[in-house]
Amino acid sequence: MSAGEGSKELVERMLAGDTLALPRLISLVEAESEAVVDIMRRIGPHTGRAYCIGITGPPGTGKSTLVDKITAVLRERELSVGIVAVDPSSPFSGGALLGDRIRMQQHYLDPGVFIRSMATRGSHGGLPVTVQGVIKLLDASGRDVILVETVGVGQTELDVVNATDIVIVVLTPESGDAVQAMKAGLFEIADLFAINKADREGAPRMKAELETFVAMKPGEPIPIMLTQAHRGIGVDELYEEVERRRRVQEEDGELERRRRQRRREEFLEMLQRKVRARFLDFAEKDDQLKELTERVAAGELDPYSACARVLDDRQWLGKWLIQGG
Amino acid sequence: MSAGEGSKELVERMLAGDTLALPRLISLVEAESEAVVDIMRRIGPHTGRAYCIGITGPPGTGKSTLVDKITAVLRERELSVGIVAVDPSSPFSGGALLGDRIRMQQHYLDPGVFIRSMATRGSHGGLPVTVQGVIKLLDASGRDVILVETVGVGQTELDVVNATDIVIVVLTPESGDAVQAMKAGLFEIADLFAINKADREGAPRMKAELETFVAMKPGEPIPIMLTQAHRGIGVDELYEEVERRRRVQEEDGELERRRRQRRREEFLEMLQRKVRARFLDFAEKDDQLKELTERVAAGELDPYSACARVLDDRQWLGKWLIQGG
Repeated sequence: MSAGEGSKELVERMLAGDTLALPRLISLVEAESEAVVDIMRRIGPHTGRAYCIGITGPPGTGKSTLVDKITAVLRERELSVGIVAVDPSSPFSGGALLGDRIRMQQHYLDPGVFIRSMATRGSHGGLPVTVQGVIKLLDASGRDVILVETVGVGQTELDVVNATDIVIVVLTPESGDAVQAMKAGLFEIADLFAINKADREGAPRMKAELETFVAMKPGEPIPIMLTQAHRGIGVDELYEEVERRRRVQEEDGELERRRRQRRREEFLEMLQRKVRARFLDFAEKDDQLKELTERVAAGELDPYSACARVLDDRQWLGKWLIQGG
Repeated sequence: MSAGEGSKELVERMLAGDTLALPRLISLVEAESEAVVDIMRRIGPHTGRAYCIGITGPPGTGKSTLVDKITAVLRERELSVGIVAVDPSSPFSGGALLGDRIRMQQHYLDPGVFIRSMATRGSHGGLPVTVQGVIKLLDASGRDVILVETVGVGQTELDVVNATDIVIVVLTPESGDAVQAMKAGLFEIADLFAINKADREGAPRMKAELETFVAMKPGEPIPIMLTQAHRGIGVDELYEEVERRRRVQEEDGELERRRRQRRREEFLEMLQRKVRARFLDFAEKDDQLKELTERVAAGELDPYSACARVLDDRQWLGKWLIQGG
């Protein structure tokens, strides 16, 4: 689709509540279509109203079930919900592993809930920017709350969830969970801990451990909530804590500061990626670079020297600038 | 240290067998020192002799113990060993989590074994290039075999281990391991599977499952080995299988093809990173870009439009090219 007419109409339809327009716009953002600039310009004035909750944690902690139950709590309060579930994709199907999503099926028929699964693999670091775009579409489409669920394992997932208004880190009393979460950097971004499957042995000990950690961190203490998502226990209380934090964030200006910082980072990341993409486009076509690459591949020239040769060559860089534009 | 004299001397000392020169050169590579271009140019002719084995798998599968035991097997055969252990780093200490390394202490006093731990976090994607540089240093220093150990969880770790001559994916009979490894993309890069802790229940079933998977893949079937690393069982057989594959790789030209492809990818990745770094350097100083960034942060302008504005501005790009050089 070309930028212009088509996306204008789609955005208008989405803003008017057409449920078919939203998924089509999301697909354009995921495909990094040229229409995206136009779409984002048009939806810009309609964003900033939704509250975005990130939910992350090691694999197997029951995040999907928790998202499911939080969704039920939100629906009881007549709030509309958008869900972005970021899954590692299967190497075989190429798509997201939707097993966990099946549990969400009770909400699939509810027009107040929109669910989108996205795959991390093969995205080569561009995923956080794409997720940001999808969050904006959900926001502009009028969703009250957006839930972003991701397995907390790598930098990409960390970047995804870190771009939300509040981050819930989900752990279970299993011995390895806290260590895995800490290694993955989740402790640094947690605004709230949920110890899920809290009926299991070890829950009080884990709570005590987290309390020790929380006490070491400066600033307002991070709340530690106990949940049993599969039974719906503790989920209301968890959401009430989210609401309480949201009010504090709104009152002390933290929410706006956080969003400003997010927009700043998003822009610089996007710009870098575009500069890089433009460079790669050029690199693929340039004979001089191709020849240099093959000399490196053959082991005749080390890559460090080859890089220095390219970057010291003003003429070559100028050619990129002119041809790559 | 500046490029030139210092690195020349260090490289000469390393090539002459000075054990203190190697860690200092590694530190320069890790710090992305300007001396690296000179170092790599100098060691280039001395590389390509070592065989590089990647060992990866989900957390808790006993990779470190396996590396320890493979090292013992290699030392029995009077082969010298270099070990690069890539660890997620602790958010508190900033350094690598060295717990598992303690098991390696029997080799710490052996001059035939050189061990280096490196942290993944905070490396922002540059780690695979750094690890490549460290592998080259170990290679040039005369190590016969280099073992690269990494937890298989994210794209960075995948890139690290994928740049070796052979990849061993370590699993245990635990139910979640195979799924986690598959989700992380490890099945696609496996040259060899090791089912470790093979005395545990479920090992025969896992072997059967892997055999089904292996049978589905085209090409030579991937061997599935059973090990009990902590008891040293199956480690000799595992290494013999590695040796057998190595001979096949050498005979059919696969090893050289793989290394050529690795050098090609390494160069293009490095070049992209340098273009990006140069851009960031400039972006930090440029008032025009700073002003644009603050407008995006304030929500006055969407990041897509702001990117388009920068990239369509030849004059601005030209300024970058000249000032950023």
